[in-house]
Amino acid sequence: MTGDVHPAWLPPEALRAVGSRRVLIQGGGLLVDTVRAELSRACGRFGGTVGGDGPFDLVLKLSNGRRPPDPDVFVLSRDAGVTVVRADEPAGLLYGFFHVVRLGEAAFDGAFPPRPHRPAIRRRMVQHWDNVDVHPVMGQVERGYAGGSVFWHDGALRADLSRVTAYARLLASCGVNALCVNNVNVHATEARLLTGRLGDVAAIADLLRPYGIRVHLSVSFAAPAVDLGTADPLDPRVAAWWADTTRRVYATIPDFGGYVVKADSEGQPGPFADGRSHADGANALAAALAPHGGVVHWRAFVYNHRQDWRDRGTDRARAAHDHFVPLDGAFGDNVILQVKHGPIDFQTREPVSPLIAAMPATRVAVEVQATQEYTGQQRHVCYLGPMWSEVLGFAPWGSEGPPVAGLAAGLVAVSNVGDDPFWTGHPLAQANLYAFGRLAWDPRLDPVAVLDEWIDLTFGPGATADPRLLRATLHAVMDDSWRTYERYTAPLGVGFMVRPGHHYGPDVDGYEYTPWGTYHFADRDGVGVDRTRATGTGFAGQYPPAWSRVYESVHDCPDELLLFFHHVPYGHVLHDGGTVIQHIYDTHFEGVEAVGAMRDRWSALPAGLVDPALAARVAERLDEQLRSAVEWRDQINAYFFRKSGVRDAHGRRIH
Amino acid sequence: MTGDVHPAWLPPEALRAVGSRRVLIQGGGLLVDTVRAELSRACGRFGGTVGGDGPFDLVLKLSNGRRPPDPDVFVLSRDAGVTVVRADEPAGLLYGFFHVVRLGEAAFDGAFPPRPHRPAIRRRMVQHWDNVDVHPVMGQVERGYAGGSVFWHDGALRADLSRVTAYARLLASCGVNALCVNNVNVHATEARLLTGRLGDVAAIADLLRPYGIRVHLSVSFAAPAVDLGTADPLDPRVAAWWADTTRRVYATIPDFGGYVVKADSEGQPGPFADGRSHADGANALAAALAPHGGVVHWRAFVYNHRQDWRDRGTDRARAAHDHFVPLDGAFGDNVILQVKHGPIDFQTREPVSPLIAAMPATRVAVEVQATQEYTGQQRHVCYLGPMWSEVLGFAPWGSEGPPVAGLAAGLVAVSNVGDDPFWTGHPLAQANLYAFGRLAWDPRLDPVAVLDEWIDLTFGPGATADPRLLRATLHAVMDDSWRTYERYTAPLGVGFMVRPGHHYGPDVDGYEYTPWGTYHFADRDGVGVDRTRATGTGFAGQYPPAWSRVYESVHDCPDELLLFFHHVPYGHVLHDGGTVIQHIYDTHFEGVEAVGAMRDRWSALPAGLVDPALAARVAERLDEQLRSAVEWRDQINAYFFRKSGVRDAHGRRIH
Repeated sequence: MTGDVHPAWLPPEALRAVGSRRVLIQGGGLLVDTVRAELSRACGRFGGTVGGDGPFDLVLKLSNGRRPPDPDVFVLSRDAGVTVVRADEPAGLLYGFFHVVRLGEAAFDGAFPPRPHRPAIRRRMVQHWDNVDVHPVMGQVERGYAGGSVFWHDGALRADLSRVTAYARLLASCGVNALCVNNVNVHATEARLLTGRLGDVAAIADLLRPYGIRVHLSVSFAAPAVDLGTADPLDPRVAAWWADTTRRVYATIPDFGGYVVKADSEGQPGPFADGRSHADGANALAAALAPHGGVVHWRAFVYNHRQDWRDRGTDRARAAHDHFVPLDGAFGDNVILQVKHGPIDFQTREPVSPLIAAMPATRVAVEVQATQEYTGQQRHVCYLGPMWSEVLGFAPWGSEGPPVAGLAAGLVAVSNVGDDPFWTGHPLAQANLYAFGRLAWDPRLDPVAVLDEWIDLTFGPGATADPRLLRATLHAVMDDSWRTYERYTAPLGVGFMVRPGHHYGPDVDGYEYTPWGTYHFADRDGVGVDRTRATGTGFAGQYPPAWSRVYESVHDCPDELLLFFHHVPYGHVLHDGGTVIQHIYDTHFEGVEAVGAMRDRWSALPAGLVDPALAARVAERLDEQLRSAVEWRDQINAYFFRKSGVRDAHGRRIH
Repeated sequence: MTGDVHPAWLPPEALRAVGSRRVLIQGGGLLVDTVRAELSRACGRFGGTVGGDGPFDLVLKLSNGRRPPDPDVFVLSRDAGVTVVRADEPAGLLYGFFHVVRLGEAAFDGAFPPRPHRPAIRRRMVQHWDNVDVHPVMGQVERGYAGGSVFWHDGALRADLSRVTAYARLLASCGVNALCVNNVNVHATEARLLTGRLGDVAAIADLLRPYGIRVHLSVSFAAPAVDLGTADPLDPRVAAWWADTTRRVYATIPDFGGYVVKADSEGQPGPFADGRSHADGANALAAALAPHGGVVHWRAFVYNHRQDWRDRGTDRARAAHDHFVPLDGAFGDNVILQVKHGPIDFQTREPVSPLIAAMPATRVAVEVQATQEYTGQQRHVCYLGPMWSEVLGFAPWGSEGPPVAGLAAGLVAVSNVGDDPFWTGHPLAQANLYAFGRLAWDPRLDPVAVLDEWIDLTFGPGATADPRLLRATLHAVMDDSWRTYERYTAPLGVGFMVRPGHHYGPDVDGYEYTPWGTYHFADRDGVGVDRTRATGTGFAGQYPPAWSRVYESVHDCPDELLLFFHHVPYGHVLHDGGTVIQHIYDTHFEGVEAVGAMRDRWSALPAGLVDPALAARVAERLDEQLRSAVEWRDQINAYFFRKSGVRDAHGRRIH
């Protein structure tokens, strides 16, 4: 650790390869200066040089040849002992630089022809659910598991913002280019960021700008009502209010990214209040932003959170599709409909939201949750790269059609970062943030290979005595950790068997008789939600035929989503030949064993191989993960044994 | 209503009968002055006179004949047209005065020979779970359902304490003579009441004193540790600290009542930390209080709140008995062991705590909960007089032995009062506070007759146009409301099927897999907790044989406690010939119907018969009660139908 803060995946050692070279940088401007400063610092440390007469090992140059320029792209080549990064724009040069850092010595080995590197997804954004004031229930960071906010503390902008700079550098190095500074649930103090406290946002923007990151702001749809008594998006005074307010924002922050809006969702205000559509609502803000090049991220997370659990006809999974598909084509060009990756809410296992494939005339961003609300809250190791990779690779029209990554104008992660010394509470959760950025840039990357990058940068050669052992250990602990987490928690895609409110730990019926629309319908005979067209809520019919057919069929439906789409008897036979009930028992016993093995593996690492504070933090969290996994196993198994009366085929203890 | 605050059971009209008489008061002192002021005010309003030459209709006199004087007793007689109240002590005169108020015109009708009125229970106390600071989770009043505290507001003693005087008058009029001003969970600010902020307590004591009410204070057992680094009750420095601190308390408040202590319970500090017993702990404080005549209320609510739900051998119901019976005889004379009426925690239906009968050498106070934590939170009508009457009349050794009321040195109610205009949130919940005082004075009173007193005082003749209709309506709504509440909530004594945390509304499994020791063990075959000696936790064996035998037997156990003592199949036949599962369905349908009838009855009251604000408040709460009862019915029935698979014999809808 450097000082009190862990350097994450950019310890000084990670820049050894570039820092020991003779480097030439051609071009100017803020982002090029950032690259120059990075290289100067690294070369100062590792003996390289920047500038001078050459010869050079590494050349980074802006070549403003093409029009229009391709903003983030860079071209990497190596010939005659010189590695060359060329970019149309400064941002490309910055990404090219960090790519060379990532390659390390491999960037200076042999020769390779010019290859353009272009992000698959243009807007790669982290959103912070950070509150300015400490919220009485949610605290400084809603669903935050890494301490306070790096931006805000107890009602004010932090006096010391040095971590924002370090954070921006980490984000840029994995390709993130946009950041929203406050919670989508906009409370009273936070609403003032847009107006009276814009200077705070500008101060953050100033620190993100050198790393090519634009700042966005969550705003309350009802903001104009304070002055006007109405927020009706079709009222000309409201339009003028937004235009005026937005003009002031851009006067203060010329490269402001835009607004993020959670409207008519879980109590947040929205256009429904005035009988207007979400398109009316989004377009009102979009019109104000358009002259300045800004965008609205309009969240599609709209559903009835006061559902009657007795009403089996209403299905929360259907809600986003039902609300938004009729509006396809009605949104302005600079509206980005932000859709959660699954139809419910960031569960460990959900099908991909059918809405993503149902808005051909609308720009869509996919939202994932790096903060581990439902995946262990950064007390459990749960590497989410494989989940996101599956989501991005999902082909809604079947293998002939484009994958989700090809449909998304943006990828958004709810940040998992706080003022914790390790940034993410669980040190290994840093990998999720890194993987998010990398998969947003290139969704076809193998998430295990991304993990390798992260390991090499974070603990890489020179930073540890036995990199091979460490790498093997980290892979053993992390590669399959999402599926391990899935095994000991809610089974077969049924979801939401968590403690209400804080969402940590098991409570099978916790949400069963609530207004939240999250049910499993377990009875003495079976479990699961019938979402078929034939006999259920019809949600399966929201997919294009390729998947609609698969999900509709209790036989074809993938096991891991069986209970999401079907209510089946406990004796239903899965594709592997086992019954649902035995699958529940088996996976829960196996999941706990796997966590035990993860813990043993970590504790077998020789002392000193990693920073002792980090080793201790991980060990302490693995202890908690094992305790919690045992609790999950015992509750889930006891619950289903009490309901089904079916004994475990292997006679293991169920309470 | 007078001004903004409802007069509860002492509207001016309630004093019409005494206020229209010629009154003589003989005696002096603070409490006699209180009586004199009451009578002067009433006579000023209704045409009577106080003093003068006579003849008199009403004579109140102190007659200090007997030694030692019987502090609270008064003797009432009427002869030759003169009603006479005679008392040894001023307190007796005060209680006699309020008794005459309660009798109204009947006190001045005919003749009756002298009869002494003596409280069955000496210490009749309300305890406030009021915090000085607003607690982040529990708010100003823990488990308070009537707004803020009448004493404290946002960290300080209220500037306007006029409601404390009005409250003291209400309490005295029903016989309460002790009051604890702060929460048994003593947080940091509240701990300072004992030391730096004693003036606040003295200010309250000054207002309670004219009504014969002594002030008590909840203290932290760990208080000495702030100065000494230890709270070990056997450390002489700790003893000296308590002696010193207590001396200062009495120097400030000469009639201070004593301390209330929740030790080693739900995270509160206690003697276990130093390996000492609860007798050691209680005696340390008692020794400091003894020279000044004060007492310690030492709560017996000690149990393992970090129980493993998998461990069926541990039974929270046993805990108080297990902890305290071995200490019988070890407590100082001025220690009062404060025992909750049931062995668990203020559930709608529990057996009487066996500890009450198991401490012959210890003074015991019984604690009930007027604040309706588990009985509808003052949103539901739930008149608790019948429950308390059953508790006080329970004879642990069988009908030959004394009842609980005969064993109790004190009766304590957790107050249901706040700064709400109606005092108790639900206006009809005022009756619970009134009934508490009256039953503490005379436990043999019929709770329905107590309700009559409360109705006559609150809405009595002259105060309403049709007292007969109003009385009939209130009886229809209130008399059986506790049993109605029981019908639509947790069945057959099983308890605790409430939402964790706030405890309002149903959640059958909410506490089932938690560390709180509150389980029902429902599975597909049956439900209930086996607490027998033969096959269960042995709790039934904590009772004297008369009841131990009854509770031990699945056939003799009263139906309403069946699931508290036994785990039975759903088909188990109750004493009325029905099965457990059908009983669950029937009572839940019936309970909702009863609430519907209560609501209809109330809404049929002609406008203007009671204060419109009160009528509206009650109507609004009855709407919520019906909504909630439906929710209870549907969840409980759905839960047990899903588990048992048994259909309702009458084919009613179960979800």
